[in-house]
Amino acid sequence: MTFMQSLAAAWQKNDSLLCVGLDPDPAKFPAHLQGRDDAIFEFCKTIIDSTADLVCSFKPQIAYFAARRAEDQLEALIDHIHATHPGIPVILDAKRGDIGSTAEQYAVEAFERFKADAITVNPYMGRDSVEPYLAWPDKGVILLCRTSNPGGSDLQFLDVGGEKLFERVARLVASEWNTTGQCALVVGATFPAEIARVRQLTGDLPLLVPGIGAQGGDIEATVRAGKTANGTGLMINSSRAILYAGKDEAFGAAARAAARETRDAINRHR
Amino acid sequence: MTFMQSLAAAWQKNDSLLCVGLDPDPAKFPAHLQGRDDAIFEFCKTIIDSTADLVCSFKPQIAYFAARRAEDQLEALIDHIHATHPGIPVILDAKRGDIGSTAEQYAVEAFERFKADAITVNPYMGRDSVEPYLAWPDKGVILLCRTSNPGGSDLQFLDVGGEKLFERVARLVASEWNTTGQCALVVGATFPAEIARVRQLTGDLPLLVPGIGAQGGDIEATVRAGKTANGTGLMINSSRAILYAGKDEAFGAAARAAARETRDAINRHR
Repeated sequence: MTFMQSLAAAWQKNDSLLCVGLDPDPAKFPAHLQGRDDAIFEFCKTIIDSTADLVCSFKPQIAYFAARRAEDQLEALIDHIHATHPGIPVILDAKRGDIGSTAEQYAVEAFERFKADAITVNPYMGRDSVEPYLAWPDKGVILLCRTSNPGGSDLQFLDVGGEKLFERVARLVASEWNTTGQCALVVGATFPAEIARVRQLTGDLPLLVPGIGAQGGDIEATVRAGKTANGTGLMINSSRAILYAGKDEAFGAAARAAARETRDAINRHR
Repeated sequence: MTFMQSLAAAWQKNDSLLCVGLDPDPAKFPAHLQGRDDAIFEFCKTIIDSTADLVCSFKPQIAYFAARRAEDQLEALIDHIHATHPGIPVILDAKRGDIGSTAEQYAVEAFERFKADAITVNPYMGRDSVEPYLAWPDKGVILLCRTSNPGGSDLQFLDVGGEKLFERVARLVASEWNTTGQCALVVGATFPAEIARVRQLTGDLPLLVPGIGAQGGDIEATVRAGKTANGTGLMINSSRAILYAGKDEAFGAAARAAARETRDAINRHR
């Protein structure tokens, strides 16, 4: 199955638009995992196994692994998801962006080494920096469009001739770059009006939406602005609010409760 | 010494504006290195030891290491440069770009794990995605401005109100983001007029210039457009033309000859 097919199937099967972000920070792990060599793997594995029937995707953030020489644990985690929870797509949040010959190397890293189903990519270097990822026809390519951080407006909100830069990115991707149907966009939950604008510009293109929970985005406004006609089209990411819902050995159960609550809160507005 | 001090010292000591890019592709290695587990390290070490007195910096491209699970060889190479060729700064070409809490992890990866002296960063997510790197006062942060690939114009050439997006990035970095003096910019050699414009907008800010050699940029036009009043201000990158100048066991000598020729060609126009 392609990424897009897996995503559509997971939306249905788990009745969920929730994406759980895996941003493992060992300083926040429960005491019984502290100091273990495989703490990152064990922590994330518990989160995954506790929430896999409640999500439409998992999104490991590679920086948290790379900062700690834990690429092997990331490989093992993605293997675990594919083996134990088949059909749940894995988005490698790497925000890569480079010229073609180097982008090919990043595609090998994401799709062959880590076996991710999709990768996040930065559009600043233009179409030919994105195309190498599309050479993998089963994979998804999720382009930054409008990001949820305060500085996101510095460039993305510039007027580029009657529209803002993020609107131009949305239009370029939807009308020119997405020739193979593999593309999606990142649009932050902190700006519901802009989610609505991107939805208007891109038809049914899937949107990855970070920024609910710790970053303050409103679930109802996000869902109403971004859902497609059939009530899907969104991967609404939550990381810290789920990963660190519990602080002791029962953190898996706490994460499950938080994930279910978030999924259900999303579903009330679909 | 800070990155900026090391760079200035290397410009003088080696009388060179040449940056050698380390983009190791095992398929292009000489036969005697094929199949060795440490082939990437040995290949790059020979390049480094053959050219270190002819360059102002080395620039390993992390994608080539990550695609082959060779982060350990990248760590060893940067250790080798610092131990054997002290004073030559190492730029980790990673083009990272993410929100603050994740950017902190990427900064740990680049500066603590790999011990790079500078990192390349993508500006699309704005100022707060750049600031975490500046918390390391000895390090350099080199922002993408105008890139040398064909698609570079897709966004960077958009008019954002009387100037192009890459000009806005240059002005933002020079006048607002570079409060600590740690910033530099990437400007491709394929556009000399744009190098001249960025130089005009940024005073003496160092410019990392890829795109000579295999990508077709003209050395004379690049140097004339980008040099500062004292004949420095540039890190002119060459990768493939130096790495693969030779195809047999004498590839180090061939790389040295190519590096010397490129350095001298640059110096004729300073």
